[in-house]
Amino acid sequence: MEQLPIITLTTDFSCRKPLAGIMKGVILNINPSANIVDITHAISPQNIMETAFILEMIYAAFPHKTIHVVVVDPGVGSERRPLLVATDHHYFIGPDNGVFTRIYNLSESLQVVHITAEHYFLPERSSTFHGRDIFAPVAAWFSKGIDISKFGDSITDYVTIPIPFPMTPSPGSIEGEIIYVDGFGNLITNISDKKIYDLYRESQSRMIKVLVGGREAPFKKYYAEAEDKELHSLINSFGYLEIFVNSRSASSDYDLKVGDKVEVVLT
Amino acid sequence: MEQLPIITLTTDFSCRKPLAGIMKGVILNINPSANIVDITHAISPQNIMETAFILEMIYAAFPHKTIHVVVVDPGVGSERRPLLVATDHHYFIGPDNGVFTRIYNLSESLQVVHITAEHYFLPERSSTFHGRDIFAPVAAWFSKGIDISKFGDSITDYVTIPIPFPMTPSPGSIEGEIIYVDGFGNLITNISDKKIYDLYRESQSRMIKVLVGGREAPFKKYYAEAEDKELHSLINSFGYLEIFVNSRSASSDYDLKVGDKVEVVLT
Amino acid sequence: MEQLPIITLTTDFSCRKPLAGIMKGVILNINPSANIVDITHAISPQNIMETAFILEMIYAAFPHKTIHVVVVDPGVGSERRPLLVATDHHYFIGPDNGVFTRIYNLSESLQVVHITAEHYFLPERSSTFHGRDIFAPVAAWFSKGIDISKFGDSITDYVTIPIPFPMTPSPGSIEGEIIYVDGFGNLITNISDKKIYDLYRESQSRMIKVLVGGREAPFKKYYAEAEDKELHSLINSFGYLEIFVNSRSASSDYDLKVGDKVEVVLT
Repeated sequence: MEQLPIITLTTDFSCRKPLAGIMKGVILNINPSANIVDITHAISPQNIMETAFILEMIYAAFPHKTIHVVVVDPGVGSERRPLLVATDHHYFIGPDNGVFTRIYNLSESLQVVHITAEHYFLPERSSTFHGRDIFAPVAAWFSKGIDISKFGDSITDYVTIPIPFPMTPSPGSIEGEIIYVDGFGNLITNISDKKIYDLYRESQSRMIKVLVGGREAPFKKYYAEAEDKELHSLINSFGYLEIFVNSRSASSDYDLKVGDKVEVVLT
Repeated sequence: MEQLPIITLTTDFSCRKPLAGIMKGVILNINPSANIVDITHAISPQNIMETAFILEMIYAAFPHKTIHVVVVDPGVGSERRPLLVATDHHYFIGPDNGVFTRIYNLSESLQVVHITAEHYFLPERSSTFHGRDIFAPVAAWFSKGIDISKFGDSITDYVTIPIPFPMTPSPGSIEGEIIYVDGFGNLITNISDKKIYDLYRESQSRMIKVLVGGREAPFKKYYAEAEDKELHSLINSFGYLEIFVNSRSASSDYDLKVGDKVEVVLT
Repeated sequence: MEQLPIITLTTDFSCRKPLAGIMKGVILNINPSANIVDITHAISPQNIMETAFILEMIYAAFPHKTIHVVVVDPGVGSERRPLLVATDHHYFIGPDNGVFTRIYNLSESLQVVHITAEHYFLPERSSTFHGRDIFAPVAAWFSKGIDISKFGDSITDYVTIPIPFPMTPSPGSIEGEIIYVDGFGNLITNISDKKIYDLYRESQSRMIKVLVGGREAPFKKYYAEAEDKELHSLINSFGYLEIFVNSRSASSDYDLKVGDKVEVVLT
């Protein structure tokens, strides 16, 4: 059996809104064979940084040629451009506001098309819901096999946002920050396992410590290993350092939030 | 490839409940080919007015012959009737409590069937969950091509709810109200773009003002055009006047809610 | 048309997290024909008792051979085992922590396999997200028709949790408890309709009363029959005694919660 084209949806529509349902209707109206998959509709409202991070986490789990539609779009209706992005194995459709910044960095091949072919849009367009009027119908037509070049011209001046990369202020230390608080209140940092392994190789039998908010967060292998209500840390399933309190919200318990500094040091 | 029959779900089950999942099981048990699409499960509990409004917003985006199942059903178990509604191009299944009021007004052709054919229901029926016991199995059987007349007799005394239409208390003014607060706290009114264009044609170069809660909400074309924390208004993607504060909740910031009066006046 | 294999998802990922989306990607990558159905992602965090109850409510609505994947997994990364469970007509995949306790009790035939065949896991495994790394890929391979024996050996020492069954402290009375509070604040008890019918047959024309929190909760047939803001009770759509306040939250209004005692007595 041939694989149906997969179209995923990532938005900040929140639980309350039927907007994702409308986009599904638009897609099925154009391509009844589309297999539409919800990634999440609970991106923090208009949070481009969080969207960029979540896209990095999810896209590679999907089959090659999956089309990922993203509607986190504070500038909808303004001059910001609609984009169709082709990477090594996946496609992305959404606004040119930086949500794809991390995707751009992860692919060897990259084609970014400014979508201008209005005959693939809905005939009546609003200035406030391009998810329905532009992104959904373009995704549906593209999933039917229309060539990417038909949707507009390639550009190279697409928007990127500054990604907070961890720093090495002195040998034997990494300084990063919290970049995402998940639904359990766990604190995901921008410090990758690779950075920590590099530090470990330099350690010469010194101990590695994780420091956040003036406290130490001892390393564990999995959540249930931490048996008290103290801060702990682990390498999470996406390869990043994560601060947690087992079965509780580290964010609420210790008043920690996105942007707070996290250090990994040799002592 | 032939289009699979589409069945959509619109309920007030909220995020917490597995009831939508159970309905999907019932449907797939009867028609494994059904393409089930969630519209929303976050209708405000038992809010018939909100359901009627959301149905009007979403149904037309779906392909012709889509079957829309609605379970917002405060009177479940009482004498209220289950309905199967055929409009020009869509089908609706749900309780006879007024949720379809706006749908009745939007279609030229209309057939409303009181569902009584119990052999299409689940064999053991509860008095509290007709979504599972009646609406889901009837939708599944209907999606297999069984004729609408097999489900019961047509009726004309179906229930409708009063729809708050805007008034024109004096020439050069429209008086409407807030009918829905969306997940971002934007305030959707019952004043259509057509009403406003009519007023504009009469304006003779006078200015149009939008007034709500004793304040003016100046017109913008899109959200990001409003750069401060004041109330603004625009014609939203469904063709209705909407009051908003850019990137914030107009409802919380200005304590505005469903039923509050909104005026459009010439000055 | 042949039925596509159905894989359902029941998790505590909550609205905010894209983890369910990632699992769908993993499944579709292995079996593009899988029909993935969300049951709920809003199990109370790490609540094994609630998960066991919800599984009992939902599984039977699905077609035979459905594969139910469960990710409520406080012990992820520890020694707790991954399981593949075959009952009379359904399959279950998830952690060996008691979430399947009620399922074990409901089936005549039962095979419980400790999943050890690592070649069916994702190649790089984390210690914190077995939903993505083990349960999703095993479900996908199993849905392609691989025999259950290929995934590991059968075990009989699987974990079960104590299920709070109602007691009969004296003839003419049943003593149970609240085991689940649903999204509307309705209080589901562990007292089945069968228990109450048994009591009714012994009643010799005495009255049956439902008592909770020092109050009586008179029997009704459906929610809308209760016209005031007092506590009432009914047999719900899953065959259990349920305490409710019509159109309100019985849990908030009367400060009732999971574990609170409920009595049914003859007076």
